[in-house]
Amino acid sequence: MTFKLALKVRDYECDLQGIVNNGVYFNYLEHARHEFLLENGVDFAKLAEDRINLVVIRAEMDFKDSLKPGDAFYVEVEPTRLSKLKFGFKQRVIRTQDNKLMLDALIIGTSVNEKGRPFLPIEVDKLFIA
Amino acid sequence: MTFKLALKVRDYECDLQGIVNNGVYFNYLEHARHEFLLENGVDFAKLAEDRINLVVIRAEMDFKDSLKPGDAFYVEVEPTRLSKLKFGFKQRVIRTQDNKLMLDALIIGTSVNEKGRPFLPIEVDKLFIA
Amino acid sequence: MTFKLALKVRDYECDLQGIVNNGVYFNYLEHARHEFLLENGVDFAKLAEDRINLVVIRAEMDFKDSLKPGDAFYVEVEPTRLSKLKFGFKQRVIRTQDNKLMLDALIIGTSVNEKGRPFLPIEVDKLFIA
Amino acid sequence: MTFKLALKVRDYECDLQGIVNNGVYFNYLEHARHEFLLENGVDFAKLAEDRINLVVIRAEMDFKDSLKPGDAFYVEVEPTRLSKLKFGFKQRVIRTQDNKLMLDALIIGTSVNEKGRPFLPIEVDKLFIA
Repeated sequence: MTFKLALKVRDYECDLQGIVNNGVYFNYLEHARHEFLLENGVDFAKLAEDRINLVVIRAEMDFKDSLKPGDAFYVEVEPTRLSKLKFGFKQRVIRTQDNKLMLDALIIGTSVNEKGRPFLPIEVDKLFIA
Repeated sequence: MTFKLALKVRDYECDLQGIVNNGVYFNYLEHARHEFLLENGVDFAKLAEDRINLVVIRAEMDFKDSLKPGDAFYVEVEPTRLSKLKFGFKQRVIRTQDNKLMLDALIIGTSVNEKGRPFLPIEVDKLFIA
Repeated sequence: MTFKLALKVRDYECDLQGIVNNGVYFNYLEHARHEFLLENGVDFAKLAEDRINLVVIRAEMDFKDSLKPGDAFYVEVEPTRLSKLKFGFKQRVIRTQDNKLMLDALIIGTSVNEKGRPFLPIEVDKLFIA
Repeated sequence: MTFKLALKVRDYECDLQGIVNNGVYFNYLEHARHEFLLENGVDFAKLAEDRINLVVIRAEMDFKDSLKPGDAFYVEVEPTRLSKLKFGFKQRVIRTQDNKLMLDALIIGTSVNEKGRPFLPIEVDKLFIA
């Protein structure tokens, strides 16, 4: 039940090497996570308004190949429970034309309330069944 | 002999949570690495023009706390040799006002020529003594 | 025969005011122009590789309202010839849910060759009939 | 009494043409405006927290030349009163090495309260004397 989001490289995302800048993949991953959450009833922006902040605490990213101008790709999101308060997202960026893996990542997050204390909303909690 | 680059948060780097967006740290780290390289005679942009591309192959980032609007900070860069063709950068983002660690990262890179084959320019090679 | 590109706000594009940052509209407009050009046989990235650079020389942007997290929108592109060497793009950003105008813009560009001299490729030229 | 902010191009701000992407100048201008405001006792981020939003309503940007990797530059900010509720910023981006004008811009803004109604804080008002 992996979530998939189809996207396309935008020229302004490419740097002077003529490829998508490494930092942009972080944006791709974030956007895909938020779309995954939204589809499952969790609205990142609305939570932030209510002072409940989902935050990334660790990112591991293995860059396998580089997306280029014009490339279509999709981002996969697979939730995985790591502990009572930590949840993970296994994420992959895959080039559409040949299904080639471009990026393999594990993003680990947690959730805090207004006071910065751990607080996991129930709708987030239930998405990450061990 | 750790290299340090002093920077300041720019408001447009902050997201709807009111803090620096996670992806922006990737930019901070890249900019600090390139300044470190430049100070040591390695010009990333000029190398790219000559079709020699320094590329990131893995990033590990531990987010400890969040930079906010107005914060001054510095980025540390410490080179570390990982293998014949792989070089690493231990990087930390530290808030200036209280020397608090905001991000602890290890960025692993390699270098490829026009054909995508491994090729380590001598000026890069000598920066990463085991 | 206005070209339209459908997009959706990404949370990382929003700033600390909780709305899409003004600078991001510039990205939206650029991406829409490049998609318009691509559909008409002009590949911005390939031209850049051949050292023919399409460049923006003036931008006029009227911000009418602000896109928010979750908003779907589309970007319109309407080419307009301004002179022998200058071409314009009338562009509008429109929120999908209510067809509300968010941004009204005129982007003026020209084209230069490797030496920085004016040079308009024929495939660009024919897109901008007076 | 023009305010000046010294900056340096960061490689990730450059696009596949090998020059600073047009949209990035918008970021430079915004950052310089906010630093100007801060030096004059107006904190954009704090105002946003208090639901008073300074917003851009029009931008006119004339691109004269392109900043490249390694370039140092400064951004000028000169406030100008346009009407009771509209204030302007004349802004220029100038390359340091030869004082060459890269960008000439006029940014027009206003200020709104929580309800989206015009509201000009006194500390903003007094910065823009006709």
